[in-house]
Amino acid sequence: MLRYLAAGESHGPCLTAIIEGLPAHVPIVTEEINQMLRRRQGGYGRGGRMKIEKDKVQITSGVRHGLTIGSPVTLTVANKDWENWSEIMSPDKVEEFQNKEIKRPRPGHADLPGGIKYGHRDMRNVLERSSARETAGRVAVGAMAKQLLNQLGVTVVSHVLQIGSAKVTQSVEAVKMDQVLASPVYCTDSGAERKMLAAIDAAKEQGDSLGGIFAVHVSGMPTGIGSHVHWDRRLDGRLAQALMSLQAIKGVEVGLGFAAAALPGSQVHDEIAYDKKHGYYRRTNRAGGLEGGISNGEELIIKAAMKPIPTLMKPLGSVNIESKETVMADIERSDVCAVPAASVVGEALVAFELAKAVLEQFGGDNMAVIKERWQQWKEYIEEY
Amino acid sequence: MLRYLAAGESHGPCLTAIIEGLPAHVPIVTEEINQMLRRRQGGYGRGGRMKIEKDKVQITSGVRHGLTIGSPVTLTVANKDWENWSEIMSPDKVEEFQNKEIKRPRPGHADLPGGIKYGHRDMRNVLERSSARETAGRVAVGAMAKQLLNQLGVTVVSHVLQIGSAKVTQSVEAVKMDQVLASPVYCTDSGAERKMLAAIDAAKEQGDSLGGIFAVHVSGMPTGIGSHVHWDRRLDGRLAQALMSLQAIKGVEVGLGFAAAALPGSQVHDEIAYDKKHGYYRRTNRAGGLEGGISNGEELIIKAAMKPIPTLMKPLGSVNIESKETVMADIERSDVCAVPAASVVGEALVAFELAKAVLEQFGGDNMAVIKERWQQWKEYIEEY
Amino acid sequence: MLRYLAAGESHGPCLTAIIEGLPAHVPIVTEEINQMLRRRQGGYGRGGRMKIEKDKVQITSGVRHGLTIGSPVTLTVANKDWENWSEIMSPDKVEEFQNKEIKRPRPGHADLPGGIKYGHRDMRNVLERSSARETAGRVAVGAMAKQLLNQLGVTVVSHVLQIGSAKVTQSVEAVKMDQVLASPVYCTDSGAERKMLAAIDAAKEQGDSLGGIFAVHVSGMPTGIGSHVHWDRRLDGRLAQALMSLQAIKGVEVGLGFAAAALPGSQVHDEIAYDKKHGYYRRTNRAGGLEGGISNGEELIIKAAMKPIPTLMKPLGSVNIESKETVMADIERSDVCAVPAASVVGEALVAFELAKAVLEQFGGDNMAVIKERWQQWKEYIEEY
Amino acid sequence: MLRYLAAGESHGPCLTAIIEGLPAHVPIVTEEINQMLRRRQGGYGRGGRMKIEKDKVQITSGVRHGLTIGSPVTLTVANKDWENWSEIMSPDKVEEFQNKEIKRPRPGHADLPGGIKYGHRDMRNVLERSSARETAGRVAVGAMAKQLLNQLGVTVVSHVLQIGSAKVTQSVEAVKMDQVLASPVYCTDSGAERKMLAAIDAAKEQGDSLGGIFAVHVSGMPTGIGSHVHWDRRLDGRLAQALMSLQAIKGVEVGLGFAAAALPGSQVHDEIAYDKKHGYYRRTNRAGGLEGGISNGEELIIKAAMKPIPTLMKPLGSVNIESKETVMADIERSDVCAVPAASVVGEALVAFELAKAVLEQFGGDNMAVIKERWQQWKEYIEEY
Repeated sequence: MLRYLAAGESHGPCLTAIIEGLPAHVPIVTEEINQMLRRRQGGYGRGGRMKIEKDKVQITSGVRHGLTIGSPVTLTVANKDWENWSEIMSPDKVEEFQNKEIKRPRPGHADLPGGIKYGHRDMRNVLERSSARETAGRVAVGAMAKQLLNQLGVTVVSHVLQIGSAKVTQSVEAVKMDQVLASPVYCTDSGAERKMLAAIDAAKEQGDSLGGIFAVHVSGMPTGIGSHVHWDRRLDGRLAQALMSLQAIKGVEVGLGFAAAALPGSQVHDEIAYDKKHGYYRRTNRAGGLEGGISNGEELIIKAAMKPIPTLMKPLGSVNIESKETVMADIERSDVCAVPAASVVGEALVAFELAKAVLEQFGGDNMAVIKERWQQWKEYIEEY
Repeated sequence: MLRYLAAGESHGPCLTAIIEGLPAHVPIVTEEINQMLRRRQGGYGRGGRMKIEKDKVQITSGVRHGLTIGSPVTLTVANKDWENWSEIMSPDKVEEFQNKEIKRPRPGHADLPGGIKYGHRDMRNVLERSSARETAGRVAVGAMAKQLLNQLGVTVVSHVLQIGSAKVTQSVEAVKMDQVLASPVYCTDSGAERKMLAAIDAAKEQGDSLGGIFAVHVSGMPTGIGSHVHWDRRLDGRLAQALMSLQAIKGVEVGLGFAAAALPGSQVHDEIAYDKKHGYYRRTNRAGGLEGGISNGEELIIKAAMKPIPTLMKPLGSVNIESKETVMADIERSDVCAVPAASVVGEALVAFELAKAVLEQFGGDNMAVIKERWQQWKEYIEEY
Repeated sequence: MLRYLAAGESHGPCLTAIIEGLPAHVPIVTEEINQMLRRRQGGYGRGGRMKIEKDKVQITSGVRHGLTIGSPVTLTVANKDWENWSEIMSPDKVEEFQNKEIKRPRPGHADLPGGIKYGHRDMRNVLERSSARETAGRVAVGAMAKQLLNQLGVTVVSHVLQIGSAKVTQSVEAVKMDQVLASPVYCTDSGAERKMLAAIDAAKEQGDSLGGIFAVHVSGMPTGIGSHVHWDRRLDGRLAQALMSLQAIKGVEVGLGFAAAALPGSQVHDEIAYDKKHGYYRRTNRAGGLEGGISNGEELIIKAAMKPIPTLMKPLGSVNIESKETVMADIERSDVCAVPAASVVGEALVAFELAKAVLEQFGGDNMAVIKERWQQWKEYIEEY
Repeated sequence: MLRYLAAGESHGPCLTAIIEGLPAHVPIVTEEINQMLRRRQGGYGRGGRMKIEKDKVQITSGVRHGLTIGSPVTLTVANKDWENWSEIMSPDKVEEFQNKEIKRPRPGHADLPGGIKYGHRDMRNVLERSSARETAGRVAVGAMAKQLLNQLGVTVVSHVLQIGSAKVTQSVEAVKMDQVLASPVYCTDSGAERKMLAAIDAAKEQGDSLGGIFAVHVSGMPTGIGSHVHWDRRLDGRLAQALMSLQAIKGVEVGLGFAAAALPGSQVHDEIAYDKKHGYYRRTNRAGGLEGGISNGEELIIKAAMKPIPTLMKPLGSVNIESKETVMADIERSDVCAVPAASVVGEALVAFELAKAVLEQFGGDNMAVIKERWQQWKEYIEEY
C-alpha cells in the first residue's frame, strides 16, 4: 500500500517526506521533481517568500542510480530562510532570543482553533505547520507519483479556470502541459488570463486577496480503478479527500459537479458506445471519468475551489488572546493570489492517489511486473 | 478508532454492518435507528421499492439492555423483497432458475466499469451492490453515531436546498429537524418546496430524473476537532470523502464552497470576536465552521451536489456487452428523485465521521469518561 | 486490501463477520466452511457447550451461485444456546428478568481488566465477548481465505505438538490434513497422542486445565510474499500478531523459534542450493520459510503456545468487586483443554493473513486475473 | 493515531523517521535520544562498523525549544560511512564507478527472497535496507516514545537473558536501567554475564555467530490499555508484531510464554487480591501483565528470541545468481553477537506501541490534557 508522511515547519530547516510502498525500478529523475517544485513557486500574484526560496529536492533513501529500489524514499526540501530563524525555531532550548510571539490570530487560518487544540499561547506553533509552505513536500511526493504513472502512459495536468470573478467560460479538454506553462496564471484561455491578471493587480492595490478554481485532468487511466463495493474504496471519495485536504480548498467537484444538480438525467449521463477500434467509449464526458467510484476509461476531471488567502495586508478584526482586546489580526508575509500554485499542488495530490489506487490493483513489487500486468489489463478490456 | 464495514446486496436477504470502536454505555434506542431508516425511505419522488420495504434494524451484538457494552455492534436490515429473489441471489449453486441477466449497462451507473473490473458477464453482480439500497446499512450506522453525539449535545440535521433548478435562495442556519420533517422534500423553504414538487412531477411525466443539493448542519461541536498537522487528519477532507462516497454525489462544499472562489478575502473570512459570555466567536460563518481542517466552534455546514438518478424510464443509449450492438440501457425499478433520501444518508455519513473524530480526541472506553473529558474541554476553551 | 470485522457475544443470537476485499470468482463451498467449524468444535477435552452448538455458517452477501462477486461477504454463525439467554442478553431494555451478574472475576481472563476498562459492574459484559466462542466467526473467515488460497495451490494445515507436558518429540514436516483429523487431539504422532489423552483425563479429574503447543504449516507459497523494507510489512510480524491475538496464546515462534537462540549461526541458517528442476531451494528449513520477513519458497512453519484455560472447576482466588472480599472466582461452563480447537483457529488466522498478503502482491479484482499473475510469478522465479 | 515511517539505507547518507500524532508539549531532550542510540551501538560482540558510527540524532521538525508542538517530528541519524559510498549509493545516475555487486546471497538474510521479490540482480539493493543498521532510526523513534511515557511515570527497560547457551536462570523482576548498563552484555546476572562473554569469544574464534533472548519490562502502566473486543486491538498481539518485526527475531513470549504450555491451569493464572492501599493486585505475575489483551496493572514482561547473525566469517553455502554455481555466501562486515543491541531496539519498539495505545485511550492533543486524564483514570481504578 502506497503511503506517505510529510513533515516540516515553514521556517524550520527543511520539509521532509517519506514515501513507503513504491515498487522497485521506477526511473526517477531528480530534475523532474525540481521542475514541479518550481511550478509550485510560480504563478502571478505570489509574495516575497518565493523570491527567497528556490526549492530543490534532495533524495536520501530508496533511489539508487536513478531507479527506486523498493525501500522507502526520503525527500527533503530545504528552507533557505531557515538561517534567519534558527533561534526562533530551534528544536533545543535557547537561552535568550528575540521571539515574535503571535497573539492575534488571523481569521480564516488555523491560528485560533489550532492554538486552542494544542494548547499553544504562541500561535507561531500552529502557523509554522498550517502554512502552505509545507505543500512543497507534498508536491515532491506527487512528482514521484507522476514519474510512476508516466511509465504507464498516464499523465496528470492541472490548469486554472477562475481567479476571483475572472473565469474560463468554455469547456476545456485534453489540456497540454506546455499550454499551461505558457501562461503566468496557468490558464489556457488567453481572454480569461488577461482578466485574471487584472483582477490580481486590483486586489493587490486594495490590500485584498483572491481565490479561484482549478481543474486536474488525467488521461491514460484505463477502466476499473477504484471500486463501488465499499465506500472507502471509491476513487471519487479518495480524490475528494485529497483535494479538500489542501489549504484553503472549500469545494471539490467531479465532472459536471454542482452543475449536475440542475440538469435532468437525460442531459447528465454519458451514453455508452462501442466500436472495434476504441472498444467501449463515451461521446460525452460529463461524469468526469468516474462512475460508481470507478474509472470508466474517459479523461478524469476534478475541480477544486480555493478561498482567497486569509492573510490580508489590510487585516481583519481579531482578538488578542492574552488581553482579549479587539485588535487587527497579525500579518505574516503572504501572497495576493495562490491559485496557480494550488493547481500544481492539486495535481500532485491527485497523482499520488492515483498511483496508490493503481498499485492496489496491479500489486507488483517492481515496475517490469506492473507494466506487464497493466498491458494485460488493457488487452482484457479490449476483449470484454 | 471507530470504524465500520457494511455489506449486502439490493435483493439479497439483508444489509449488514459491523461497527467497531464504540465506547461502552452509549444509550441506544432501536426505534431511533428505525426512525432514521424511515426518513431515508421517505421524500417525494421515490419509486415502487419503497412501498415494499419498511426498514427495521435488528441489533445482534454489542448492545445489552439499551446500552453499548464496548464490543462490536452488528446491525441488520432485512430486505423484504428477498423472498422473490432467493434463487436468483442464492449464495449456493442452484440447479435451475430463471435469471434475468443484465447485458445492457446503464450510463451513469457502475454497471460497465464494475463489470469490467470484476470480470462479470451478468452486470447484476455489480448493480446489486452499487445500488443505493445499501445506504440503509450506512444510515443505521450513522443513527448509532448520532446517539453517541447526542449524549454530548451535538446535533446533526440535513435538509434539501435544491431539486433540479428549483432552489432555496436564502441562507439557512440553525435548521430544526421538525421543520425538515414537515416537508415532503425535506426543505424548510415553502416557496422552494412548491417548485421542487412541481419539478419532480414534470420530470416523472417525461420519464426523466432529477438531482439536487442538500446541506448537513452540525451544532454543538466545540473548537478543536480535526487537525492541521497532517493532510489526512483534516476534518474537512474526511467529510468530503464521506459525502463524495455516496452514490451520485458529484460535488462537496464546506461553508461558502465554490462561491468563495469569486469573492475577495475581505468578504470571505470570519472576523474573530470575544465576550465573557460566549468566549471566542464569529459574527459570520462563511467558513462553515472549519478553519485549517479544524472545527472553530461555529455551526458546521457541508453541502453536496447529487446528479440525477441514472436509471431513466426513457432509457439512454448503451451497448449489449455480448453482441456489441447499440441498444437502450436496461431498466431497474428506480426513483425519479432521491435527493431527500440522499440528504438523510449524508447526515448519517457526517455523523459517523464526527463521532470518529470525537473519539480520537477524547479517547475513552465508556461514555461516563468521555462526557467528563468533553466537559473539561469546553471549560478549558472558555478559559483559553 | 483484504480486511474483516468480527462481532458477536457468546450467548447473543449469533456471531457475524464481514470480509471486505475478496476478489470476484472465488469458488465458495458453504460446506467447507462448516467442516472447519466442526473441526473447531472437536478435539478431546471439550466441555458441555460443544454438545449444544453444531455450528453452521450462513452467507448473506457477497457470494452468488457459489462464486464471490467482489462485494463484502457476510458470514453468520447462530448461537443455538441463545434461546435460553434472550432476556439476559437482550439488546433492548427488559422490564424484569433473572440476571446472573458476574462479580467475582476469573484470574487469567479479561474479566477484571476489561470490567475496569469499560466501566462494567457486571462482568458478563466483558466475558460474553472475550470468550473464545467468538473464534467461530474468525474460523469462518479463515475458511473463506483457505478456499481462495486453495485456488492457487496453497494449503494450510495445523496440528498439535504438545498438551501439558505430553509432547511430540520428532520434527514434523509436510503434515497431511487426514492424518491430523484421524487423531482426537489433532496430533500426528500416536505415541504423543496417547500421553495427551491421559494428561487430559488426569487434569479433568483434578478440576484443573491444560494448555499446549500447536503448529501451522503452509505449503505452496512462492518466494516473495511479505517485505523487508518496512517493519509493518514483514510477514513474520503479521503472523505473530494474528496468532498472539488468539485467546490464551502466550508465545509465537517461526521455524526454530526460541531454540535458535541457543545454537551457533552455522547450525541455524539454511544453505542455498539450486538445480534446474527445483530452482533455488534449501536442504534444511530451520527458518520456517521466512527470511527478512519474506517467504523464501520453503514450507512456512509457525508455532503458538497456549496457556491452560483459566476457568477452573476448582476455582482460583479472586475478589468480589462490590464487597471487596476474598472469594473464589466465578465459574462459567468451560473446557479442560482446547488446544486442538485452538490449532484450527490458528490455521484460520494464518490463512487470512496469507490471503491478505497474496492479494496485496497480486492485486486483481477477479480470480482469473490473480491466477494468471500467480502463474507468471512462479515462472519468473524459475528464471531468476 | 500515533504512527511513523522509517527510511534509509545502511550506506546511504542517513536514516530518517517521521513520527505523526504526538501531542504538543512533550518535553524532548535530544541527548536522551542520543543516549539510547549509543546503547544500541554498544554491547560486547559488535563488529567494526560500530567504531565508525557514533550516532547522533538531528530533529528537523515538530519540536521547538525542547517541546513538541503537535506537528510531525522528523528524526535524522547520519551515516558517517556514507562518504565512502557516495558513488555506489548515489540516488542519481553516476557515469563510472566501482561497484561491488552482491551475487552470492547469504542464507538467513533477505538477500535472495528480497532480490527475487523486487527483481534486483545486485542484492546490495536488498541488504542496504534489510540490514539492522536501519534500527538506529527505529530506536530514535522509540526514544521519543519513552520521553512521552516518562511524563506519565511509565518506564521501559530491556535486558539480556541468554546468549547462545549461556542464560540467566533466576526470574528477574523490576530491572533497573543502571544495573543493565553496568554490564557489557546488558545482563543483570553477573554469573550468566561471565558465561555470555566467554561464549562470544569462543564463537568469534570459530568464525561463528550467536543469538539469544532478551526481555522488555514495563512498569507504571495502569489497568485497561489494549482491548479484548477485537483481535487487532489486543495489546499482546501488537507487541508481538512489533518485536517479531525486528531483524533476526524468531520467537516472542508474553509472561511465562511457552513454559505456560506445560503447566496445569492452577499453576499458571495469577490470583486476584485487593487491599485498600494497592487496590486490586496479583501475588504472582505469570501473565506478564496482560490478560485478554489488556494490561492488568502488573509489570508488562515480553521476551524475544534472536537467531544468530546470518553473516558468518566462515560463510555458508550459497549459489551465484548469475552462474548458478555453488559458492560460499558473500560477506558483509558484521557482528558476532548483537543480542544486547537488539534488546535496546526491542525496548524502543515496545515503547512506541505503548505510547500509541496510551494515546488511543487518552486522546488529547497536548500533554497537560493527557496528564490530567491519566491521573483521573488512576483515581477511577482505585475506586472501581
